[in-house]
Amino acid sequence: MIEYTNITKDLPESVPFVGPETQERNLGFSFLARLGANESGFGPSNDAIKIMARESKNIWKYGDPESYDLRRALADKHHVSMKNIVVGEGIDGLLGYLVRLFISPGDNVVTTNGAYPTFNYHVIGFGGKLSKVEFLDDREDLNSILAAAIKTKAKLVYCSNPNNPMGTINNPNHLADFVKELPSECLLCLDEAYCDFLDADLIPKIEVENQKIIRMRTFSKAYGLAGARCGYAIGSEGLIKSFDKIRNHFGMNRTAQLAALASVKDKNHISEVRKKVKSSISTLSEIAIENKCLPVDTYANFIAIDCRKDDIFAKKVVKELAKRKIFVRMPFSYPQNRCIRVSAGSMDDMNIFRKEFSEVLKELR
Amino acid sequence: MIEYTNITKDLPESVPFVGPETQERNLGFSFLARLGANESGFGPSNDAIKIMARESKNIWKYGDPESYDLRRALADKHHVSMKNIVVGEGIDGLLGYLVRLFISPGDNVVTTNGAYPTFNYHVIGFGGKLSKVEFLDDREDLNSILAAAIKTKAKLVYCSNPNNPMGTINNPNHLADFVKELPSECLLCLDEAYCDFLDADLIPKIEVENQKIIRMRTFSKAYGLAGARCGYAIGSEGLIKSFDKIRNHFGMNRTAQLAALASVKDKNHISEVRKKVKSSISTLSEIAIENKCLPVDTYANFIAIDCRKDDIFAKKVVKELAKRKIFVRMPFSYPQNRCIRVSAGSMDDMNIFRKEFSEVLKELR
Repeated sequence: MIEYTNITKDLPESVPFVGPETQERNLGFSFLARLGANESGFGPSNDAIKIMARESKNIWKYGDPESYDLRRALADKHHVSMKNIVVGEGIDGLLGYLVRLFISPGDNVVTTNGAYPTFNYHVIGFGGKLSKVEFLDDREDLNSILAAAIKTKAKLVYCSNPNNPMGTINNPNHLADFVKELPSECLLCLDEAYCDFLDADLIPKIEVENQKIIRMRTFSKAYGLAGARCGYAIGSEGLIKSFDKIRNHFGMNRTAQLAALASVKDKNHISEVRKKVKSSISTLSEIAIENKCLPVDTYANFIAIDCRKDDIFAKKVVKELAKRKIFVRMPFSYPQNRCIRVSAGSMDDMNIFRKEFSEVLKELR
Repeated sequence: MIEYTNITKDLPESVPFVGPETQERNLGFSFLARLGANESGFGPSNDAIKIMARESKNIWKYGDPESYDLRRALADKHHVSMKNIVVGEGIDGLLGYLVRLFISPGDNVVTTNGAYPTFNYHVIGFGGKLSKVEFLDDREDLNSILAAAIKTKAKLVYCSNPNNPMGTINNPNHLADFVKELPSECLLCLDEAYCDFLDADLIPKIEVENQKIIRMRTFSKAYGLAGARCGYAIGSEGLIKSFDKIRNHFGMNRTAQLAALASVKDKNHISEVRKKVKSSISTLSEIAIENKCLPVDTYANFIAIDCRKDDIFAKKVVKELAKRKIFVRMPFSYPQNRCIRVSAGSMDDMNIFRKEFSEVLKELR
């Protein structure tokens, strides 16, 4: 028998998430409303759709390993240099590279209990030691993260803004102060997957030569390209360059690169999506209130709905909704797991959810 | 400053390959004939093109993290269980996972000098120690690999069949014997990226519960889906399951999964492609001979052409062809670097190559 490495030998065979397709196979039917993965049912930019369709026949060519044109467009968008941007296989892929660059077995990492499990998966996967602080008022608690980072001499801390699974944010000034106060040996991984839903003044200013922060962005949420697998990181030149030592240089899907580029250039799509998301979130809030639940104020394309009972109840709600062909998820940890998490979606999705959610609650109460 | 891990700190900033797009940007024009990356200019299956085009609008959904339908079809094709197959982001991605599963700093790995650089990139990237044996008569030399594996107590050995960059093969019985003789603590990574160009009786039989071998397959070559990034590995159940501990579960592009599935189901495409490749390779052989060069007998969709001088001459040929808008590559190491490596391509590609190659040789001789 070939021996696994010491790290991989002991890793659990757990998966960060079970996909909706697995649930569909188990249930024996397809979901009518796919509202559990914070995908954008409003779809990608028409320009992106067009170029993907047109370029399908040219997929025999590898993508450009430098993602040059896309990085050029992103650099222009963010007023930074191309050297400050690395494109990767979604934020998931980039998180893996980031952890690999910095975390050796036993190194400390701080995150929030209940925040993005795929980040944790990578940290554990490279032998890192995770410390988890608690949410405060359903927000990621910068003070606790800072205290834990100092106490554990963490090399890496994770924070998402807006955060997942609650959709809340931290004030950009607080975030800026937090970065200043972080020890110089510590890197903040700021996951901004949902920042395209924020007004510009709520997004912390990009200070690209600050070596204490790397920002993760994606085309999976507002841009509606989750299945394309395209994300990017913005950071200081040296840090970004180091990804070239380990990343899968030919890992990018060619039409994903083209679709992302078309999406950046399409100035209308995102504002249209934001309007639709706002309207859908406001409908979801109404539905929550109609059913004597509490909607959590959200800044993302999903909303946590407090079912005003415990996690066991919320779990039942999620399960019953699945039986009625609605895919939603819920937070993993207390006390956020009193909620279910529902993504924004089309009018049809909202109508189905309105009907079934109310019936499920009646049944379970 | 945040400290990198001991492994990544010392890694070179080298890239396994420079992409043709980078060359195009440097040259200031686009290539007319893209014959350097062993892509398939004959393109993907029409069914694959159609489904990619049709499903572009649904790319807002993440792909199935289990690649269930594709694995089901591949299991049927190879008469193995789904549990023997893992789908990943091209062979490049899977090689990275494989190395990560087994190689800790200082662990020994054996490959052939001049074989696939991306495998080496991953080994070095995880701190492994590479031993390189020489080609024998332009083939990967199983005896040398075996001797080096035993001598260095290697955990992993790499062999490609047909091999890249020479296009030659090892006899399937020799390969089977080789696997038998490998120490039980050693795993053979058999890279079969080009095996779809082989007649069935030249492919070593799949003995799927043999724990000493894992086989890498891809949709990038014969299937013409290089830009989609979809490969798979076939191996024993326990080994395949271990990929789930570290792989990027949501890493697959959704339309790539669908295109690969459509390609497996299309029974005609591959045989058509094989005919075209054979014809193109025979044209390339003719061109080589017309120009007093030696074509190396190839079993893949590319051919090594021995220019009958040294590596300096071959490098000049590659460079001059690039100036004439033809992209080809050449082997990295002696004595294979007496050759240039040219991929099969369309009639147009062949005509351009015929004309320019002859002129370049006249100029340089």
